[in-house]
Amino acid sequence: MAAGVAGPEDTRTRLLATALKLFTEHGVQGTSLQMIADALGVTKAAVYYHFKTKDEIAEAVAEPGLRELDAVVEEAERQRRRGARTDHLLTGFVDVVVRHRALISLFSSDPTIARMLTCSWNGKENFRVRMMDLLVGPERDLGRLVAAQVAIAGIALTGGSEDLAALDDESLRRHLLDVGRKLLGRPRA
Amino acid sequence: MAAGVAGPEDTRTRLLATALKLFTEHGVQGTSLQMIADALGVTKAAVYYHFKTKDEIAEAVAEPGLRELDAVVEEAERQRRRGARTDHLLTGFVDVVVRHRALISLFSSDPTIARMLTCSWNGKENFRVRMMDLLVGPERDLGRLVAAQVAIAGIALTGGSEDLAALDDESLRRHLLDVGRKLLGRPRA
Repeated sequence: MAAGVAGPEDTRTRLLATALKLFTEHGVQGTSLQMIADALGVTKAAVYYHFKTKDEIAEAVAEPGLRELDAVVEEAERQRRRGARTDHLLTGFVDVVVRHRALISLFSSDPTIARMLTCSWNGKENFRVRMMDLLVGPERDLGRLVAAQVAIAGIALTGGSEDLAALDDESLRRHLLDVGRKLLGRPRA
Repeated sequence: MAAGVAGPEDTRTRLLATALKLFTEHGVQGTSLQMIADALGVTKAAVYYHFKTKDEIAEAVAEPGLRELDAVVEEAERQRRRGARTDHLLTGFVDVVVRHRALISLFSSDPTIARMLTCSWNGKENFRVRMMDLLVGPERDLGRLVAAQVAIAGIALTGGSEDLAALDDESLRRHLLDVGRKLLGRPRA
């Protein structure tokens, strides 16, 4: 391939980065395929070559974050003790949230992407159910269920919050982890 | 007025109740003015008599909850001690969340309504800024800011969560309050 001419894979990567940027600025609803094509400097047909619908693009944008979250949940599910399951899930969840702040901010404000967290993903049960099973356990203590839901929802929304966009990753990670440990009754790291 | 014939005020009240029900089932985006008219058994023109756009309906649906939240924030702002400000805001916020569960669930999943919480309302600064000022104070301690954001976002989302829809108001209120007090360093009630 001649230097300077983008191959299909390269275009796909640029397309997803551009889509994330536009989704963040205008919401998924407020972004059209034409806007994505214009921002990339390609035709709408070139966008269609990779994705048939905007929902497909939104799913592809969310995919890396969901894949990492799935790995975190699987590793936590392999732990035998409750405390270790909680610690693995909480640490991994905070890491994913901090690493994908821009995406999380979309997750929390856009119905298209929020749906993916509550629907099954790759044939597995939805993330919320799996995370609650890990954090609450089979006895379903009500106080613990409420604390776990506040922890997961609150950490995700706070991690993606515009108020904290200027905060460095390490400080955000540490404070989110402190809050999660307090809520879930784990000793401070 | 003849018995059985609805006056304009009555139609407005029924319209808002019907809209909330449809918004909850289909999202604001997925609900049309025609669907609202059909569910009410009136013409689209009758809906237009009260509201020109769907956004106006969404705002009117959210209005009672926002008005109550405004009263809670104002009362908290009148308290002199930090502890009393936190206690007033937290108790009042949890009350509003529990009383308006269906609405809160929309707030958290719909961009139209979520925008109202972060934009100014009746010319006042947005609720999030006012609540953070009350809970965090002028020194803006970072750990406290993160804890307060997790508390507010987590309580709202958990209160509106479908997982807890069957839980009675009093239990939900008590557990959300416990979690909030723990996060904000207040003694248990």
